[in-house]
Amino acid sequence: VADSFAGRFAAVRAARGPRVWGLDPSGKLLEDWGLGDSPDGLDRFADLVVPVAAETVGLVKPQSAFYERHGWRGLRTLARLIEQARAADLLVIADVKRGDVGSTNDAYASAYLGPDAPFAADAVTVHPYLGLGAMGAFVSRAHESGGCVLIVTRSSNLEGREIQAARVPGPGGGTVEEKLLAEIGQLNQKLAPEAVGPVGAVVAPAPPSPELPELPLTSMNGLFLAPGIGAQGYRPDDVKRTFAACPERVMPSASRSLLAAGPDPSRLRAAVSEMAAEFR
Amino acid sequence: VADSFAGRFAAVRAARGPRVWGLDPSGKLLEDWGLGDSPDGLDRFADLVVPVAAETVGLVKPQSAFYERHGWRGLRTLARLIEQARAADLLVIADVKRGDVGSTNDAYASAYLGPDAPFAADAVTVHPYLGLGAMGAFVSRAHESGGCVLIVTRSSNLEGREIQAARVPGPGGGTVEEKLLAEIGQLNQKLAPEAVGPVGAVVAPAPPSPELPELPLTSMNGLFLAPGIGAQGYRPDDVKRTFAACPERVMPSASRSLLAAGPDPSRLRAAVSEMAAEFR
Repeated sequence: VADSFAGRFAAVRAARGPRVWGLDPSGKLLEDWGLGDSPDGLDRFADLVVPVAAETVGLVKPQSAFYERHGWRGLRTLARLIEQARAADLLVIADVKRGDVGSTNDAYASAYLGPDAPFAADAVTVHPYLGLGAMGAFVSRAHESGGCVLIVTRSSNLEGREIQAARVPGPGGGTVEEKLLAEIGQLNQKLAPEAVGPVGAVVAPAPPSPELPELPLTSMNGLFLAPGIGAQGYRPDDVKRTFAACPERVMPSASRSLLAAGPDPSRLRAAVSEMAAEFR
Repeated sequence: VADSFAGRFAAVRAARGPRVWGLDPSGKLLEDWGLGDSPDGLDRFADLVVPVAAETVGLVKPQSAFYERHGWRGLRTLARLIEQARAADLLVIADVKRGDVGSTNDAYASAYLGPDAPFAADAVTVHPYLGLGAMGAFVSRAHESGGCVLIVTRSSNLEGREIQAARVPGPGGGTVEEKLLAEIGQLNQKLAPEAVGPVGAVVAPAPPSPELPELPLTSMNGLFLAPGIGAQGYRPDDVKRTFAACPERVMPSASRSLLAAGPDPSRLRAAVSEMAAEFR
């Protein structure tokens, strides 16, 4: 278990805290930082943020969309960023939200997980619209390589409520998000019965409310990525309340609110360290 | 409307038929074809298939996963394939199944739709797990650039049934897939009241059955991508029966079953032409 993602996260958490820095270089941000909204500007962004991340956090989460919009050159930067971040002992979550039929997921999994992957991340986000049953390649690759697959379950935006809160047919019932957590729990139980398993969930750090009923988080036996701190309106206190039952299994993530402090490295470092303190 | 995707598809359909050739170069296929499972092998695959496609079909659908697994070099090939296919008057559907929160979808949409996109496809597939309401950037870019956004609604695999057949909460009810088709219809009604709109749906060519209840296809006022012909078990007759109410709005797609005829160009040409005949 020492080499599992959960084991590596526990070590990082003890040493540097649980927080994740989302690396989302939008066109506006690249312009605001004076780097230029271009593949070269994106390269300079990567050069600038990786060293700051290595000094301040344990995990980074590049959002693929902001690299894809610069075409293959942007993806070359993403590959380099992932490699350099891991070389600096950061855990890297590739936020790609892929997901397709089984044979296509084989190909996606080999792109993002495992030592030979061209974008060899420690963890990858996927969406479940084509079913958790089609995710076998992601799950087995994550399990075998000490990686983690994070299933988007309750997203940080509200537009997804119709689907996420829909009730599944057949006996057992429950909502889509409840059912996903139960199925993830079964997978983890099988793969890592005595430990925190390789399948996790993306769950918004939104305290329970009439629109967002409480989820059975503890039985899942996996890690949670809690996105949207800061710019999307969630606060550290929301994380604490939402995951009160399993605080040691949450990876809270902030992106835009931290990047707004750049491009000066010392100001960036201060902003990221401040978020760090809020989660101690 | 002449420049809308629906208008361009109607022209292509009249001239070359409605069929879509899925370009899914798996590692096994590249080996079987003697090209090598490498970025160079992928490049040779692209060189080989684009001319054959230009002679035999009106649309191609590269599946991104099979290019991403070769890293940025594979995506450089994808960009080149898209450009060369469009230069040969093929319509290109980028099968990427992206989807995220609104601000991230802005970035994804600018990667795949519009004249300045690095992967400037004619149409793009997206998944709706984070909500159709978050898809504004895809929809407006598709509308403005004569493109199309295809929302995965009923996938070609059965593992997604739990989510796709779940019942949405609140008044109106219905299943997730029914609700999506209704919402797509509303978007199209607003954007293209007198025509076939820029938002389409991916719907498996599975004739109605107890597990797959009939969908309200005609009211959607958009195009359908019907994947999975051949290797996934669907036949041309299934397409005919499933879309009997709107045959002129379906793009039936086959991938592996056609590629199996390669690498010899004349055998490939024959296999693709044969599929063509089946849809006339």
